Amino acid sequence: MLVEYARIRGAEPPVTPRGAAYIFCGDHGVVAEGVSAWPSEVTRQMAMNFVAGGAAISVMCRHYGMTPHVVDVGIAGAPVDGVRRMRVGNGTRNFAAEPAMSLDEARWALDVGRTLAAEAAERYDIVACGEMGIGNTTAAAALLCAYGGVAPEEAAGAGAGSDADGVRRKVEVVRRALALHVSREPLEVAAAFGGFEILAIAGMILGGAQRGLPVVLDGFISCAAALVARALEPEALRCVFYSHRSAEKGHRLMLEVLDARPRLDLDMRLGEGSGAALLIGIFQTACRIYHEMATFDGAGVSRSHGDEPPEL
Amino acid sequence: MLVEYARIRGAEPPVTPRGAAYIFCGDHGVVAEGVSAWPSEVTRQMAMNFVAGGAAISVMCRHYGMTPHVVDVGIAGAPVDGVRRMRVGNGTRNFAAEPAMSLDEARWALDVGRTLAAEAAERYDIVACGEMGIGNTTAAAALLCAYGGVAPEEAAGAGAGSDADGVRRKVEVVRRALALHVSREPLEVAAAFGGFEILAIAGMILGGAQRGLPVVLDGFISCAAALVARALEPEALRCVFYSHRSAEKGHRLMLEVLDARPRLDLDMRLGEGSGAALLIGIFQTACRIYHEMATFDGAGVSRSHGDEPPEL
Repeated sequence: MLVEYARIRGAEPPVTPRGAAYIFCGDHGVVAEGVSAWPSEVTRQMAMNFVAGGAAISVMCRHYGMTPHVVDVGIAGAPVDGVRRMRVGNGTRNFAAEPAMSLDEARWALDVGRTLAAEAAERYDIVACGEMGIGNTTAAAALLCAYGGVAPEEAAGAGAGSDADGVRRKVEVVRRALALHVSREPLEVAAAFGGFEILAIAGMILGGAQRGLPVVLDGFISCAAALVARALEPEALRCVFYSHRSAEKGHRLMLEVLDARPRLDLDMRLGEGSGAALLIGIFQTACRIYHEMATFDGAGVSRSHGDEPPEL
Repeated sequence: MLVEYARIRGAEPPVTPRGAAYIFCGDHGVVAEGVSAWPSEVTRQMAMNFVAGGAAISVMCRHYGMTPHVVDVGIAGAPVDGVRRMRVGNGTRNFAAEPAMSLDEARWALDVGRTLAAEAAERYDIVACGEMGIGNTTAAAALLCAYGGVAPEEAAGAGAGSDADGVRRKVEVVRRALALHVSREPLEVAAAFGGFEILAIAGMILGGAQRGLPVVLDGFISCAAALVARALEPEALRCVFYSHRSAEKGHRLMLEVLDARPRLDLDMRLGEGSGAALLIGIFQTACRIYHEMATFDGAGVSRSHGDEPPEL
């Protein structure tokens, strides 16, 4: 992992990673279909919690010395103090009835992520991508179906605590939306299902690939953004690290579609970039080992029986 | 993981874990069969490196604020300065020709681990078990075959860098040894194949279960110790956490035999307790989140639609 990180940054020996978490927040019109156990206002309440330092990702940022960036790409309602305003809209539209956003809005949301990737590439060596958006597991499930050819009942899961009825509603909504939005043109798929925060993460992935910024993805939602990015640009994922396998049902399948191997398996299902932050913690440890560990020669360790020391 | 940790420690809320790494070192007579790419003296050289702070586990202990304990349970040759001397013997005997140790020596090595578990339960809240012992992947492979009914060619892998010829020699040696040591009585199996450091880890697992000390296991070798502990005492693994799936070939199968689910998948293959230390780092993060994260009520987050907030 560290070798790959150093290759991406073009720095050998690898530098101790300056890390940040970008937490993209946006709301989803599809919540009107009763797909979430939570009301949309929880998105803004959690954004306030991120700013106040009370969320899990806030604690992780303090623990790992990472800078949190809370970005409003489309929280419903009035702007939240202390949150960066890069609002594409006032929440997406209900994709069970119409496209979540226009193609222009989709390009705009992608540009938000690209812009932040450009900024981050100057200030940090690695970033965690996180999100907050009530309803966004439904959007991510729809993207998995549309890009990956997965059946709705395989893609939709409990999200942030839906019961069996809630999951059945999600499956039904995704099935209906797939029948409504039939285009498989990459940008049209992204615009059809949204959300703004997912497209912003896709933009950050695309910008990261362009600027040599390692982007650590979190769970089900940020991996949906990886599907968007790859559909738009086949080489988009060259600077991506997959952090963990989440407990969300569709994530395992999504990782297969991405041919991705996550490094942590902790039954996490929180979003916010929490799994990604854990992997950045491991990068920090690995980098410290690289710099402080003795060589075999330095430590006076005998050579192996062969001419060349084996890889240990 | 944290709930389980708190249950084991009998402390709610969970206390921020004071951690330590116990690195058990011992040599293996079976090295005479040419099963390792490295000479036995590397065990003592690495023990010196642990004491000097130059090994990967040394860096990790500094990084995570863990106390390293380097324990000589049977390094071949003269004692190493700065290493705790709890020597059961001067390396084990060659198990391809005779039992690696007597039954008394096996009990003694187990007692070393039990003694240290008792000590650790007073001073720490969680311990990583690591090891160093040239030849010990061959011993661990033999234990996997004997306790788990696994075929030698499935159990033996590259260890610390054996080539294809080396792996073939390991398979052949394990096959011969299994034919030589036919008893399947748990302690006799442990004594037949050794090593001292593996039995000491098994003793630490047994002592941890008795005293409520969470014991984080590392890779192939320390999981072989878990097989020993479970064979001796069916409830032995109740305080064990499995840290990672190593790149050593037989580890996947060994985890299946243990019905264990490791949390990290990083292609590590270093031993020393390095994977276990990483998981203790994650325990530290989890504990900090537990103590610093706001509650939904505290953060002013709306209730879900149901009466009870769903599990997030």
